[in-house]
Amino acid sequence: MMNEIFNGFASDNNATVHPRIMQALADANHGHCLSYGDDSFTEEALSLFKQLFGQDSEAFFVFNGTGANVLALQALTQPYHAIICADTAHICVDECGAPARSLIANPTKDGKLTIAHIEPHLHVLGVEHHSQPHAVSISQSTEMGTVYTVDEIREIAAVCHRHGLFLHVDGARIANAAVSLNVSLQEMIVKTGVDILSFGGTKNGMMFGEAVVILNPALAQTFKYIRKQGTQLASKMRFIAAQFIALLTDNLWLQNAQNANRMAQLLSHNAREMGITVTQPTQANSVFAVLPAEAIKKLQQESFFYMWNVANNEVRWVCSWDTTEEDVKQFTASLKFKVSGLKFEVSGLKFKVSSSKPETRNPKLETRNS
Amino acid sequence: MMNEIFNGFASDNNATVHPRIMQALADANHGHCLSYGDDSFTEEALSLFKQLFGQDSEAFFVFNGTGANVLALQALTQPYHAIICADTAHICVDECGAPARSLIANPTKDGKLTIAHIEPHLHVLGVEHHSQPHAVSISQSTEMGTVYTVDEIREIAAVCHRHGLFLHVDGARIANAAVSLNVSLQEMIVKTGVDILSFGGTKNGMMFGEAVVILNPALAQTFKYIRKQGTQLASKMRFIAAQFIALLTDNLWLQNAQNANRMAQLLSHNAREMGITVTQPTQANSVFAVLPAEAIKKLQQESFFYMWNVANNEVRWVCSWDTTEEDVKQFTASLKFKVSGLKFEVSGLKFKVSSSKPETRNPKLETRNS
Amino acid sequence: MMNEIFNGFASDNNATVHPRIMQALADANHGHCLSYGDDSFTEEALSLFKQLFGQDSEAFFVFNGTGANVLALQALTQPYHAIICADTAHICVDECGAPARSLIANPTKDGKLTIAHIEPHLHVLGVEHHSQPHAVSISQSTEMGTVYTVDEIREIAAVCHRHGLFLHVDGARIANAAVSLNVSLQEMIVKTGVDILSFGGTKNGMMFGEAVVILNPALAQTFKYIRKQGTQLASKMRFIAAQFIALLTDNLWLQNAQNANRMAQLLSHNAREMGITVTQPTQANSVFAVLPAEAIKKLQQESFFYMWNVANNEVRWVCSWDTTEEDVKQFTASLKFKVSGLKFEVSGLKFKVSSSKPETRNPKLETRNS
Amino acid sequence: MMNEIFNGFASDNNATVHPRIMQALADANHGHCLSYGDDSFTEEALSLFKQLFGQDSEAFFVFNGTGANVLALQALTQPYHAIICADTAHICVDECGAPARSLIANPTKDGKLTIAHIEPHLHVLGVEHHSQPHAVSISQSTEMGTVYTVDEIREIAAVCHRHGLFLHVDGARIANAAVSLNVSLQEMIVKTGVDILSFGGTKNGMMFGEAVVILNPALAQTFKYIRKQGTQLASKMRFIAAQFIALLTDNLWLQNAQNANRMAQLLSHNAREMGITVTQPTQANSVFAVLPAEAIKKLQQESFFYMWNVANNEVRWVCSWDTTEEDVKQFTASLKFKVSGLKFEVSGLKFKVSSSKPETRNPKLETRNS
Repeated sequence: MMNEIFNGFASDNNATVHPRIMQALADANHGHCLSYGDDSFTEEALSLFKQLFGQDSEAFFVFNGTGANVLALQALTQPYHAIICADTAHICVDECGAPARSLIANPTKDGKLTIAHIEPHLHVLGVEHHSQPHAVSISQSTEMGTVYTVDEIREIAAVCHRHGLFLHVDGARIANAAVSLNVSLQEMIVKTGVDILSFGGTKNGMMFGEAVVILNPALAQTFKYIRKQGTQLASKMRFIAAQFIALLTDNLWLQNAQNANRMAQLLSHNAREMGITVTQPTQANSVFAVLPAEAIKKLQQESFFYMWNVANNEVRWVCSWDTTEEDVKQFTASLKFKVSGLKFEVSGLKFKVSSSKPETRNPKLETRNS
Repeated sequence: MMNEIFNGFASDNNATVHPRIMQALADANHGHCLSYGDDSFTEEALSLFKQLFGQDSEAFFVFNGTGANVLALQALTQPYHAIICADTAHICVDECGAPARSLIANPTKDGKLTIAHIEPHLHVLGVEHHSQPHAVSISQSTEMGTVYTVDEIREIAAVCHRHGLFLHVDGARIANAAVSLNVSLQEMIVKTGVDILSFGGTKNGMMFGEAVVILNPALAQTFKYIRKQGTQLASKMRFIAAQFIALLTDNLWLQNAQNANRMAQLLSHNAREMGITVTQPTQANSVFAVLPAEAIKKLQQESFFYMWNVANNEVRWVCSWDTTEEDVKQFTASLKFKVSGLKFEVSGLKFKVSSSKPETRNPKLETRNS
Repeated sequence: MMNEIFNGFASDNNATVHPRIMQALADANHGHCLSYGDDSFTEEALSLFKQLFGQDSEAFFVFNGTGANVLALQALTQPYHAIICADTAHICVDECGAPARSLIANPTKDGKLTIAHIEPHLHVLGVEHHSQPHAVSISQSTEMGTVYTVDEIREIAAVCHRHGLFLHVDGARIANAAVSLNVSLQEMIVKTGVDILSFGGTKNGMMFGEAVVILNPALAQTFKYIRKQGTQLASKMRFIAAQFIALLTDNLWLQNAQNANRMAQLLSHNAREMGITVTQPTQANSVFAVLPAEAIKKLQQESFFYMWNVANNEVRWVCSWDTTEEDVKQFTASLKFKVSGLKFEVSGLKFKVSSSKPETRNPKLETRNS
Repeated sequence: MMNEIFNGFASDNNATVHPRIMQALADANHGHCLSYGDDSFTEEALSLFKQLFGQDSEAFFVFNGTGANVLALQALTQPYHAIICADTAHICVDECGAPARSLIANPTKDGKLTIAHIEPHLHVLGVEHHSQPHAVSISQSTEMGTVYTVDEIREIAAVCHRHGLFLHVDGARIANAAVSLNVSLQEMIVKTGVDILSFGGTKNGMMFGEAVVILNPALAQTFKYIRKQGTQLASKMRFIAAQFIALLTDNLWLQNAQNANRMAQLLSHNAREMGITVTQPTQANSVFAVLPAEAIKKLQQESFFYMWNVANNEVRWVCSWDTTEEDVKQFTASLKFKVSGLKFEVSGLKFKVSSSKPETRNPKLETRNS
């Protein structure tokens, strides 16, 4: 038992690539084919996206989530525009200013923006002294592991469109939301009126690659220039496309998310069983919990994870497509400290962070960088 | 024989991924590891770059060549700066304005910038009305398949530094140049005084991934922010790192380039044998040739390649790490038209462009997009 | 008396140009002289700035306050940097995103940033996922009519420099602060460690023109390019310079501010006398007051001024270099409503807003655009 | 006579402000009025622009010519767009990269772009690898003192619109062109199909201030944000507006240009009389001439002017609204050197460059910065 190594709960970015996606990469590696997307893999992958999002949609493949978000927001806005978002949004916190627009960041209790957050910012519309709100960006699922209902998205889109704003969805974890809500993307994204979506691949079992899915056809025409100028056009595009073909075939994208969500439910349940406070509803693949300060550091040494909020000892655990029940079980065992007495005991278990260098890590890095 | 399919000569971006690199990707796909470069693969790959470029160098991995160039040039320049380059430079022609700086593009006969191109632009230094030249960017090997000598690079670097400019090398095909000159990167890049290098991986057998190698330590400190803000920080970084480990192990990077260069020599030789005019010295992996107009379209149908210059019927053929002698032999056979009479005959051979959609391609695309 | 027209209290931007400055413009209008600052007026004006700020300082003239702030902040920061400021800062609220950087806006009670606001944002330093705080920007006097003490500025500068940040002062109303504190700019700006200052001219009796004063010599060398590239280099520069010569001669800049501050004191006193709540200490030339909702609209019709905060019926009144005791007296008379019963009576007085079009104004504009 | 001081010929930026404009500034300096353009002066000035350019046009006042050009081009283009211009264009040579777009600079013989320059760049339209030409920018009159005919402008506009490009006219010297062609702006600008115009004030007798005139109504709606975000919104706007009212009243703008053009004709005629080669047709207010090298430096000491082309000893002389016949006469006298023998003799005359510091000027500045 001491010899076994388990997956950790630091981030779904730390996970492996799904074997079917690895196989797809190998299968695509035969013979020359045109670069930059003029290949049959891309053609096939794009047609799968049209099946998901409708014939009026247009998907564009990019390298990573920050790229997807930045390009999507550039497609919606000009430099004098502002983007309304939650203050926990990845675009706000974790992209080093890459969106290059004024962000109007709203504190929320659960990472979810509401109409009540948005409307008060709209009175500046038309006044040239102020950055003009021109897009709302929401994350589905959110960075807090919560999920907007279909109605909530529809309501936000309606407010946006009534005032001439666009709605962007950061769907780095869109699959986890789809599983959570058990609705189709047509219901969740297309019919609700979302204008543009960052569709996540990397956090859901791919090696690299995301898609910007444009639902509002008026935005699609010039996007290829935005992508190229934004350094996000892959030359050997077939290797992004082949991954997406695998991901969208036989619902692998949903299966992967299903496992991650289920493991999060399990971990959340176990933690609450022990009396640990779980601070957010566990609706997707993340669990937020408050631990005794002395426990956190020791737990991190066994299996590294990120502090979410140093002030109140809140931590984040993320489950992945490859998290197993055994991983959760062992991590739960590792959590075994006397909750009543708040006294932490080292479990002695070892988790797979073999490649990390926790001893040399910059302590500053020990806040999340999801 | 009619059943065999051969590799084409359109671009080294059309080539496959080397099996040892595919294997490295598979090998890296075990267990969780920290994302964004805090992993042992990245640590190892970076140490291999230090072996190549010296302990004072710092490498940063990015997704693609445009990303590498854009970030490198951002590290060297401010918005009021200009960059001096050849008018054939990839940054000038093929990146849709991504460098976001004034480019001073110089016509050259062979894609190589000389001091005589650079110096006349320097009289504006100090005059605020004019974009200030602050970097020179050269491609090694060039987009014309030519190679700067070590002395030429040293001379350019000296002029740059004498006037307070930096020297950037776009090394998307640096391996082909290293093979061509048969010198170490220490000789070619470090000792000559290059400040920053885009080190190519994708065109030389990788799936994706390039490195920005900073030789001038003063530039290294803030580069990580430039990379993140520029959307080029990979989350599952181990998969770029693992590829570079394979590429730099046992000189795979040189072997790959060696094959490509040798095939280009062979093709160039065959073409000239037939009386075809080869317009540039074949020093790296590209061959530029003038063909009769009627031949080009028919040849492209058998094996697609790009027009270089429509005005004079100049075409470009690129050899790759996976180009075989048989590929060259067959393409040469396909070239068999009566050179004297300039009458083209279809060879009936089939080349591997199975994934391309030549019949539906935008005719505009039939200029190079290397 | 009913025929007399008085100055209003909407903004010091609404004021006239001081006669000595008008005279200076006329006097400068003789004969040709070199443009873009190579003239003797600019030479003289710059030497006056050196007298004020020391021989190591460098001043650069620009057109307007937004220009001064934007260029100053560009001189301090890169696109991956963030700027810490109060959420009432002009750069944050009133410049339509012109600084083009991430702004970390802090709610304050009085428009003044403190170390307690700044320090919590510094833990992200070194972590590439987050915009890096690299400058603090404070307004002196603030947009709330308050003034930092010399010690407060020194303390903020010390924190900035300890962490590698720069300190910018938006001094659109620096003269009002100088009068309020009764200290020299050497004491307030140079010795405290400010790195760069936007020195206001327009709001203090000039027609147009501000100065960016660089105290940190390392920043001065490239500023001329930032100014030119930022579209803020005036061709007929002598006409900005001549105004500054007049403004800095015989302490006109202080006299102008003295009058404005004194009138604000008077108005503030009068308002409090009537039982009106003045919400901020009146330390410079602005008065913030809460009025009964029914009073505001009627008062605005007599003499337009801006709502500061619709939620709590807070309004802003600004005094100018040309505000007279009679103006204040009449406005006070106009304020005569039964404070006890909160019943407003129209005074019938007329104020000089002859050029405005209050009846046709966009109601949205009736928030401040200072 | 030796005591008299004459105007020089370095630049129309060196000239004075017209007395009627000075008077208008003084007249506008009474009482408070709303800032940022909500004043009656701006209202009146804008209505004068509508008289000139039609009711569908919208004018926006800005500070300077670089500002006008940069904002106009931002209104037309995105970062992935390119702008086609002459390589002598002010936006290309003299604005330190401020337009922040890829410029496709074309060598011309006379500063005038033709369809033959434009069309070859359009084959990249639709190909994402290349900056997309989206605007053509021409200068009327050009930086070479030449003037496009109405037909030439119409023809360029037609080519632009046929391919989805916009046409911008840099009219820093539009008045000189209007006088030269003796046509209305309706004929020259509106009916030809120009989309956006930088209308010059400063070079034509104003102190500061230019107008961006939008002829294509689709571009007007968002321009106020572009202006504010671009730091070009004046707070005390009445003082730009009042100048424009004076300039457009009783055709002062045409009278000023008429004088400048006539003086240029005179100077051009005198020079050619002496056997000096005038290199460009003198169609507006500039004269380009080749002088013996030894003459240039000595002439510059008497009356500074800019070298245009060091290589061939070509100089530029510019006449202004305030250039007098006496100025030209004296400058002509100063030119008196033995043309046959090319031997220069100092005239001993003194020109009004009293404010310049020619002895200390950066020799680099002695190229044009018009």
